[in-house]
Amino acid sequence: MEKDLNICLVGTGWIGKSHILRINSRLKGGKVVAVSDVNSAAGKAAAEAFGCEYVADPKAMIASKAFDAVIVTTADAAHAEYTTAAIRAGKFVFTEKPLAPDRENCRKVIEAEMEGGRMLVQVGFMRRYDPGYRQLKKMLASGQYGAPLLLHCAHRNPDVPDDYTTPMEVENSMIHEIDVLRWLLGEDYATAEVACGRKTRHAGPQLQDPQVMILTTKSGVRIDVEMFAKARYGYDIKCEIVCEEGILNLPEPAFAMVRTNMARVTPIAKDWGERFPEAFDIEFQEWIDATAAGRVDGPNSWDGYMGAIAASCASRARDTGTVVRIDGEPMPEFYRKGAKG
Amino acid sequence: MEKDLNICLVGTGWIGKSHILRINSRLKGGKVVAVSDVNSAAGKAAAEAFGCEYVADPKAMIASKAFDAVIVTTADAAHAEYTTAAIRAGKFVFTEKPLAPDRENCRKVIEAEMEGGRMLVQVGFMRRYDPGYRQLKKMLASGQYGAPLLLHCAHRNPDVPDDYTTPMEVENSMIHEIDVLRWLLGEDYATAEVACGRKTRHAGPQLQDPQVMILTTKSGVRIDVEMFAKARYGYDIKCEIVCEEGILNLPEPAFAMVRTNMARVTPIAKDWGERFPEAFDIEFQEWIDATAAGRVDGPNSWDGYMGAIAASCASRARDTGTVVRIDGEPMPEFYRKGAKG
Amino acid sequence: MEKDLNICLVGTGWIGKSHILRINSRLKGGKVVAVSDVNSAAGKAAAEAFGCEYVADPKAMIASKAFDAVIVTTADAAHAEYTTAAIRAGKFVFTEKPLAPDRENCRKVIEAEMEGGRMLVQVGFMRRYDPGYRQLKKMLASGQYGAPLLLHCAHRNPDVPDDYTTPMEVENSMIHEIDVLRWLLGEDYATAEVACGRKTRHAGPQLQDPQVMILTTKSGVRIDVEMFAKARYGYDIKCEIVCEEGILNLPEPAFAMVRTNMARVTPIAKDWGERFPEAFDIEFQEWIDATAAGRVDGPNSWDGYMGAIAASCASRARDTGTVVRIDGEPMPEFYRKGAKG
Amino acid sequence: MEKDLNICLVGTGWIGKSHILRINSRLKGGKVVAVSDVNSAAGKAAAEAFGCEYVADPKAMIASKAFDAVIVTTADAAHAEYTTAAIRAGKFVFTEKPLAPDRENCRKVIEAEMEGGRMLVQVGFMRRYDPGYRQLKKMLASGQYGAPLLLHCAHRNPDVPDDYTTPMEVENSMIHEIDVLRWLLGEDYATAEVACGRKTRHAGPQLQDPQVMILTTKSGVRIDVEMFAKARYGYDIKCEIVCEEGILNLPEPAFAMVRTNMARVTPIAKDWGERFPEAFDIEFQEWIDATAAGRVDGPNSWDGYMGAIAASCASRARDTGTVVRIDGEPMPEFYRKGAKG
Repeated sequence: MEKDLNICLVGTGWIGKSHILRINSRLKGGKVVAVSDVNSAAGKAAAEAFGCEYVADPKAMIASKAFDAVIVTTADAAHAEYTTAAIRAGKFVFTEKPLAPDRENCRKVIEAEMEGGRMLVQVGFMRRYDPGYRQLKKMLASGQYGAPLLLHCAHRNPDVPDDYTTPMEVENSMIHEIDVLRWLLGEDYATAEVACGRKTRHAGPQLQDPQVMILTTKSGVRIDVEMFAKARYGYDIKCEIVCEEGILNLPEPAFAMVRTNMARVTPIAKDWGERFPEAFDIEFQEWIDATAAGRVDGPNSWDGYMGAIAASCASRARDTGTVVRIDGEPMPEFYRKGAKG
Repeated sequence: MEKDLNICLVGTGWIGKSHILRINSRLKGGKVVAVSDVNSAAGKAAAEAFGCEYVADPKAMIASKAFDAVIVTTADAAHAEYTTAAIRAGKFVFTEKPLAPDRENCRKVIEAEMEGGRMLVQVGFMRRYDPGYRQLKKMLASGQYGAPLLLHCAHRNPDVPDDYTTPMEVENSMIHEIDVLRWLLGEDYATAEVACGRKTRHAGPQLQDPQVMILTTKSGVRIDVEMFAKARYGYDIKCEIVCEEGILNLPEPAFAMVRTNMARVTPIAKDWGERFPEAFDIEFQEWIDATAAGRVDGPNSWDGYMGAIAASCASRARDTGTVVRIDGEPMPEFYRKGAKG
Repeated sequence: MEKDLNICLVGTGWIGKSHILRINSRLKGGKVVAVSDVNSAAGKAAAEAFGCEYVADPKAMIASKAFDAVIVTTADAAHAEYTTAAIRAGKFVFTEKPLAPDRENCRKVIEAEMEGGRMLVQVGFMRRYDPGYRQLKKMLASGQYGAPLLLHCAHRNPDVPDDYTTPMEVENSMIHEIDVLRWLLGEDYATAEVACGRKTRHAGPQLQDPQVMILTTKSGVRIDVEMFAKARYGYDIKCEIVCEEGILNLPEPAFAMVRTNMARVTPIAKDWGERFPEAFDIEFQEWIDATAAGRVDGPNSWDGYMGAIAASCASRARDTGTVVRIDGEPMPEFYRKGAKG
Repeated sequence: MEKDLNICLVGTGWIGKSHILRINSRLKGGKVVAVSDVNSAAGKAAAEAFGCEYVADPKAMIASKAFDAVIVTTADAAHAEYTTAAIRAGKFVFTEKPLAPDRENCRKVIEAEMEGGRMLVQVGFMRRYDPGYRQLKKMLASGQYGAPLLLHCAHRNPDVPDDYTTPMEVENSMIHEIDVLRWLLGEDYATAEVACGRKTRHAGPQLQDPQVMILTTKSGVRIDVEMFAKARYGYDIKCEIVCEEGILNLPEPAFAMVRTNMARVTPIAKDWGERFPEAFDIEFQEWIDATAAGRVDGPNSWDGYMGAIAASCASRARDTGTVVRIDGEPMPEFYRKGAKG
């Protein structure tokens, strides 16, 4: 903790800028000091706004000795490339989810990391840092409620843009549940299935909405996740864990209840920023601390790879109308050693 | 339970008709078969609507051998007179609250009843029949939470008519709390005080609204009751009992919660009919059953008298801005014997 | 409503006696005046307890001119036989659910009733009378929340006896959801499927517990119902309706919340008597009223038949691990006329 | 924000150490680099634990050019002295509440600060930084619910040590409500009164528990605050604001609800650390940011003084059993200019 980490960031879109703001104004031990972006105007504007250096060539920036660690917040398709560049440079790297849009590119990152001989990559699965999910994890771990048997989850958005399509319900949205539930339960998935309810009249021809994804784990836990992208009423996340001796519920956010207009009214978040206000801060503070200590504590590239495999199986299940077996590979010794649980 | 009770009712206003409907269409063991009203047109219309006999002279009706029991739902000022007539006729009588608007007339009913030598009168304090208050009573009686120390209550209406005035907050509205809390705690009051908060802009010159009534009991329990007659947002009743080992809360009614429009929304009742849907049915079924069995089980004329005394002390406290001692009399042997608690 | 209905009842077990108590002590317009039971000792004891006549031959009792209407609360296997006897006698009959344990016997009742030319049978699906479900039905009917798309339901018992087996989760327990959801949505089912989660360690070899039943309706609404018979923690019923513009939730019962022992604690019912305290009273009052008026208003024998078909399809789905098409028949004109919705 | 603030801290007790931990491990822009304590062993141990310098003489440390800002977390009686020393040194100082235990010493700080000609002092009233109270403040400010009329508050601890006495209910505990409600409502108090309910059997002879403090504001808002120090069941803070068009409630913390053991069970915090997990972080981050910017944004010494006056009036009210007028002074121009609201 002697000296702040000098962090460089590639990809200065909305999410990248929100992370710079967070790190540079609220968190301890690190500072984003340089940025790069394929859109140089955007990159320069961000650099100016935050008082950072602008570096035209992202790979040169990543390789430069001036910077201690890397954040990758580019378009999804470029995640793997820059993450691999950071690995090659021997630097800790935080890559927004997904690690790559497809399993093959995830696999390449894994291979590069194992070749390098050191765990360096953390993937931006921020749900693991939400205090509510952490309460659930602790309650499961206590054993007080027996084994988990069933999970009922929901992921609802008030709306999505017109270019949001049927496959994105699994691959961009429920990918969060795929990761966080695997972490909550501490085991890999066995099968995936996707069923479609009656379609809402608010969805256009490109989007089947809502969808229900059903996952089972190796030990037989059955999970259903409702994804409802045009739920209109709010951004709402539910997770109910049916255990042998009790049912655990993800807490609702702490919003003030008002008695007004013939009703008790408690606000629901409009978006994930309102729903998970603390998770990103905790995620990056822990990433900075672990990086300074030379460790990867959070979701690693193996987690990113497993998530990509499950998501691609779920997509295939939806497209084929079948139950698809998830052919997970055993975790390599390399990641088992590093995993802190 | 061999034969239905033939009940006669005096006072065919809104509340009277709602009791006829209830008794004649849903409850066992009794039927309202005759009605009377000083407004003969109203009385005849009600008689026709319910297939009852109309009797022009209420006292003759009350005295007639054709009827087994009496219900008094006239204007408040006439309650004592008809109740006394029923006592004189040796009949069980259900009188809507208040027993009389003033303590002197309550006292006269008491005296008539004691002279008659038999408990006959039940007063319409319906809160005691609400399943929620009954849960609280049972929880207190269990001893599991220790002694009650403080009570925080609220009585809120969406609105009141223009002729509702400052004293009515105590005498017509909080009289319900005065009775039900005395019953809940099983002890008499020691002092009364009424404080006024900042006045809502929705109240006219004749009405101080809201008001806060503070009662203490003989054992020192301190009760505050907020009365807010023009609360706008709904009809809402709260009762929180602070005990030595826990805080008990009157349940909210079972209304369906909806997630809509960026909020979780649970309806609040619009009026007491929606708030206490079961209490009146239970009250009258128990009254019919007790009457058939020759007993008074519910709130009796002594309870009506004690309520009137506390209310008049609270009104005086408000008018004088002082704490007023409630000079309750010891319960006569006559009522102690009959009371089942 | 001039004269009370004289009702005779066959089958004086626990549920039969609870209905006699209800009708004879709380409800208007009817009285159970005679009972019969294949176990004559039990039948005589019940007759004595309730001051009824005991009739040795149930069919003679059902046929007797002395009685106006019939209640059948025998073992399930005998329901169809006595119901048919009542139809033959031209009497209104209330038959506890199920109408018959199998679809063939339900079919026979239907045929007898159509032959008789008059709707006479009501089946004891009491959930339709629960005020909570009625709120949901009204909210759906209002159109305010758009079309229903998905339903998430749960039916949990604290425990079940040792002779409760795998098929009973559908046929004895979730049969309630099968009926009430079909009524809520106002349409028939298209397919059934049953998935099994990881099994609780509290279930013996004869019982797969929990199970998840998935039903779809003709219009494509997807329903999942979790049945957890040995949930330990309480008797708990959930129904969440995901609509296009809001999510509706079956209300929790109105139990007093206590703050104690480092928690806010709200009781959960121990059994269906505590969970649905009012539904049976409303069900029988409405049955008596409709019978007196010469109508069947409640769930009729066609509803009983449709329920039996869906349940048998769901059982087959579980046994075969497949999705089973529910081959519902079109409702005959006879029932369509009579149905009030 | 170029360079971290070098902060020195006097008073390395529990609260002091928790602030060092917070600032040095999670917050941006400042670092506690030196500590002092009258108990030199304790001070040296803290210095070692956090890698700080230990300075024997607190006044010398406060005066030293090596440090940019000061935190005072000594015993209450020494707050004013060190705060004044910081003012004399022209340094921004964060002083834990209370500014001083008595109004005279608060007054002296005020005078020193005004003499110095610059606002430098922030008092540690952390409730203002709780996201829940901030929601309430925003809702009041929106005007959507009309004017506030009544407030019902509660402050409950599971237990207190044996040396916690009757006056401490106002002066150490409800002082939090005194400050936060004055800030919420944006106006000064007019009167104070303290009533005592029946005493819990868990309180010894030195402690009247619970107590109810009643405050009125200049505009007539009536506030009741229940203080229950030995409430046993948890650390629980309630704030209900009765407005002309709605009732606002301080949110409950976001804890996971469990259905278990015949109840829905939601944890209640054990202590204020669990109840207000974010407020301290936000308080110190904002203090560091404002200090770096040369401003005082938070509760200032005038707020500390006003709180001390109200608390001493409330104590007198309890001791005398009367309603005590709160003789607030008009805010000097000096503080009005600096106040941002």
